[in-house]
Amino acid sequence: MDPGWLDVAVAEARAGLAEGGIPIGAALLGPDGEVLGRGHNRRVQDDDPTVHGETDAFRRAGRLRDYRATTMVTTLSPCWYCSGLIRQFGIGSVLVGEARTFHGGHDWLAEHGVRVRVLDDERCVQLMTAFVAEHPALWNEDIGVAE
Amino acid sequence: MDPGWLDVAVAEARAGLAEGGIPIGAALLGPDGEVLGRGHNRRVQDDDPTVHGETDAFRRAGRLRDYRATTMVTTLSPCWYCSGLIRQFGIGSVLVGEARTFHGGHDWLAEHGVRVRVLDDERCVQLMTAFVAEHPALWNEDIGVAE
Repeated sequence: MDPGWLDVAVAEARAGLAEGGIPIGAALLGPDGEVLGRGHNRRVQDDDPTVHGETDAFRRAGRLRDYRATTMVTTLSPCWYCSGLIRQFGIGSVLVGEARTFHGGHDWLAEHGVRVRVLDDERCVQLMTAFVAEHPALWNEDIGVAE
Repeated sequence: MDPGWLDVAVAEARAGLAEGGIPIGAALLGPDGEVLGRGHNRRVQDDDPTVHGETDAFRRAGRLRDYRATTMVTTLSPCWYCSGLIRQFGIGSVLVGEARTFHGGHDWLAEHGVRVRVLDDERCVQLMTAFVAEHPALWNEDIGVAE
């Protein structure tokens, strides 16, 4: 897992922010880092609570028969929903941009045999820190925290 | 959780089967059993690997701010992807039609405070038993079992 693989997810997060959305991006990569699917959170843009960065990237990769050699790259530690996706479909590896602003299910994934690498990428931290400070209710909605 | 609440999920599963899809249906219900969203697996119909019964029902319920008083009704034990959805968004209860043909994450949900009731509904068992016997590769694809 090359840390440089994170760049495509960061670009997706920034694209989401520019659209007025929650700045979380992801990509599903093949064994050599080739992009199979890339996407970002679209809760705001599509008014759809199911479209997290990881699920968007997974959808855009289309129907595949074997995910073991793929890597899910995401700017933020995957929530339980996205961690469940990774486990169910047997995605082999996960590269996480940062887990400082939100700690999801990446430890659980590692316990269940997924190769996990967590970076502490300042671009990812900055995107989420600024967004959560500005839109706390929207962020809580996205992770199911009731008020 | 009234076992009768399962009927809407069974109707969705049958609708999916009639469309040529995988016969798993679900509904997100409010406190009195009112339907907030209902849907079914659409992997085949939409060529979309992210649309499980539960995620379809959740999407069709739209954006909600608090899921604690809702119940996810599903014809089949929820896979890790759908179990993760239920946990992340704090859906309070899950009514499962059957867990005989597939055992997903419902025990894990119960451990984490979700109220879980598992039925052994013959309609649900029959739908899945027949489908899996006829389309084993498609079923394996839907739950991420590589061949």
